Amino acid sequence: MAGENRKAVVLVSGGVDSTTCLAIAKREGFEVFALSFNYGQRHRAEIEAAKKVAKAFGVKEHLVLDVPLGAIGGSALTGGIEVPKDVPVEQMQARIPVTYVPARNTVFLSLALAWGETLNAADIFIGVNALDYSGYPDCRPEYIESFEKTANLALKECVEGRMRIRIHTPLIKMTKAQIITRGVELGVDFSMTHSCYDPDPVGRACGRCDSCILRKKGFAEAGIPDPTQYAP
Amino acid sequence: MAGENRKAVVLVSGGVDSTTCLAIAKREGFEVFALSFNYGQRHRAEIEAAKKVAKAFGVKEHLVLDVPLGAIGGSALTGGIEVPKDVPVEQMQARIPVTYVPARNTVFLSLALAWGETLNAADIFIGVNALDYSGYPDCRPEYIESFEKTANLALKECVEGRMRIRIHTPLIKMTKAQIITRGVELGVDFSMTHSCYDPDPVGRACGRCDSCILRKKGFAEAGIPDPTQYAP
Repeated sequence: MAGENRKAVVLVSGGVDSTTCLAIAKREGFEVFALSFNYGQRHRAEIEAAKKVAKAFGVKEHLVLDVPLGAIGGSALTGGIEVPKDVPVEQMQARIPVTYVPARNTVFLSLALAWGETLNAADIFIGVNALDYSGYPDCRPEYIESFEKTANLALKECVEGRMRIRIHTPLIKMTKAQIITRGVELGVDFSMTHSCYDPDPVGRACGRCDSCILRKKGFAEAGIPDPTQYAP
Repeated sequence: MAGENRKAVVLVSGGVDSTTCLAIAKREGFEVFALSFNYGQRHRAEIEAAKKVAKAFGVKEHLVLDVPLGAIGGSALTGGIEVPKDVPVEQMQARIPVTYVPARNTVFLSLALAWGETLNAADIFIGVNALDYSGYPDCRPEYIESFEKTANLALKECVEGRMRIRIHTPLIKMTKAQIITRGVELGVDFSMTHSCYDPDPVGRACGRCDSCILRKKGFAEAGIPDPTQYAP
């Protein structure tokens, strides 16, 4: 059944990972329904990036949902806590950082399920990776596998045997450099993407948050020029 | 650890089940944080009921979140599909009805996790029941157990060993009559509650949707007068 259904919901944040993930879903032949979230993140510039990317890849539809994670708080990305700067990569992964957003991927994937079920899209793509990442627990393979099991128990279409949800994580074992290299191969223009957690008022990247550091390192290791506009 | 933490997030829709569930959480000694959702449901009267109930039980806080399930559609409760009327109870449970909302409990529980983690509340109460219910897959014990496992893999506080999420479903094996009887024992004033999927403009229950039928049957079987205001 899953093979016949060629619609996929792809979570698109507008960063390097989700953009490459979108390119991979397209390359695999899926009709792509892009899903982005306005969740009160301080780096809302990423939504504009997501729109550009979705358009560039000719997605079937791009839905941007408002999700009230800001009303819940508990994160440097949505609340008053400062975004850490200049943290060495080894330290990022030693413990879960303050930019962690409680239950973010669970909330996002749940909404992807809801949309997927109405679209009859059994395939959901999410650009998590467990190598060059920020140490978030909801990016690990064991979490994704468990969510997939839960999804197949939750949905009417699954329980009635017409659909089997598959959560695709094509980047999960890739380094940032590999993700960038693969993205370039698939025609991604990374100048459209946005990674910085703490951009300046005109949207330029800080160059110093975890997300910027991992991005810079990825371009350097891939030997590909970094098209990011950094604040001076 | 779980025993020391006496805060609970209780999902409160303002209906019979969630109100009894709230009363049980209070009776078990939890400090209750009530969580309701404005998800584009046509029976938004339930949010006013939830507010009354939360106040009557002296919850610590009541958060009402806007969730964009209406933007996603796929349900008689949020979309243009008509709410079925006069369906016999046996038929309701024979197949999942059009009032099913895609991934609703997964979305709601995910947001409860997010709030729970910021509050340091490891206990989440949800008034699902698998006997006198509408046949929704995300009310079954196997779904709830799977969600609980996923939650414990998703959250920073769980992965770092400071919290273990427990999803409480005290009503899961109760009939509607038992739920009503238990609610009355615990001091619930059911005249405050709202169950109807399709109330009239002044908020009176239709008496004919699945939710009204199950509610009426419950009061009748419990031998307790039904305080519901039905439309003439």
